[in-house]
Amino acid sequence: MTSAIDFYFDFSSPYGYFASTRIESLAAKYGRSVVWHPILLGAVFKTTGSVPLPELPLKGPYSLRDFARSARFHGIPYNPPEELPITTLNTARAMLWIQQRYGAAKAVEFCKTAYRAYFIDGIHIGEAENVVRVAVSMDIDGGALSAGMSDAAIKNALRTEVEQAMAKGVFGSPFMIVDDEPFWGFDRFDQLEAFLKNGKI
Amino acid sequence: MTSAIDFYFDFSSPYGYFASTRIESLAAKYGRSVVWHPILLGAVFKTTGSVPLPELPLKGPYSLRDFARSARFHGIPYNPPEELPITTLNTARAMLWIQQRYGAAKAVEFCKTAYRAYFIDGIHIGEAENVVRVAVSMDIDGGALSAGMSDAAIKNALRTEVEQAMAKGVFGSPFMIVDDEPFWGFDRFDQLEAFLKNGKI
Repeated sequence: MTSAIDFYFDFSSPYGYFASTRIESLAAKYGRSVVWHPILLGAVFKTTGSVPLPELPLKGPYSLRDFARSARFHGIPYNPPEELPITTLNTARAMLWIQQRYGAAKAVEFCKTAYRAYFIDGIHIGEAENVVRVAVSMDIDGGALSAGMSDAAIKNALRTEVEQAMAKGVFGSPFMIVDDEPFWGFDRFDQLEAFLKNGKI
Repeated sequence: MTSAIDFYFDFSSPYGYFASTRIESLAAKYGRSVVWHPILLGAVFKTTGSVPLPELPLKGPYSLRDFARSARFHGIPYNPPEELPITTLNTARAMLWIQQRYGAAKAVEFCKTAYRAYFIDGIHIGEAENVVRVAVSMDIDGGALSAGMSDAAIKNALRTEVEQAMAKGVFGSPFMIVDDEPFWGFDRFDQLEAFLKNGKI
């Protein structure tokens, strides 16, 4: 019996999006399942004292270039969003609500659909009406979701997710934890795979 | 006629050390030479608003783990230094002095010897007496180096190196620029290789 891979991501993170396109096939190759955890880097950065990559001098322009180049290198469709990063509070809350109402598989499908909407189709997935539109395209009840996103229980559930993630040492996106071994970044998928294969590095 | 790879590194950077063990063989594979540029992350971070990885909450403990794990993954000898990062002003100045006095090849040999001293043998290579000891082990004139390291011309030369690096967008270690294409991090060697191979990514 092997444990799942905990997969942490922010909906506004290009590297999180890249990882989301590969994490399931990688896990399946080694008989693992994946538990998807939306986090809010904005909240995490308050603790770590970090700021979003694109806003940093020198590092900012480079990171925009690296997002696009990494996508090409790995063969992942990517159109640079006009606004990056965005606040994805609504998106993360919607994901948790969908998980409660429709189950984990549907919530994962929503994650992928939202990521594609933002990083391929240029839709601002931080705005509530766009979140609902994305969900409705997946046959999710838009009215119920609208209400659910602002429900106190869902707000608390997200706060708890972020707190638990930080308690486990999560500070970036994507972040993977398997058998207590932490991996930060899409560029650690090679080490993650070696760990899954050999049980150690 | 192909241009050289500009290789920027801080003597206190584990990822810079890892890169230093591979950059020449990678370059040679594609008919390129390497120009080694010592930089001071401390000075760069004042501009970018960054702080050394090991000092950050959450990110700090992870980075120490990642240094050691990355070394194992890539088969590079590595013993975590007791103190990290250290100020490598003396080391960088020594490298430039050796370059002027003994030529580029000897200076590169010094870089590798100093990196091994710090990351394998646990020698604090920020301290002037240790810098001299490392250099003397390579048949460099220790007395002349001692004087050279505190020479105003060498101090200015290093200041200029760091300024020129930042003017080219360098903000971390290792950082490689080839044909105007920038690559940050040892974990971008795969993309660097693809670029050297195909002339684009």
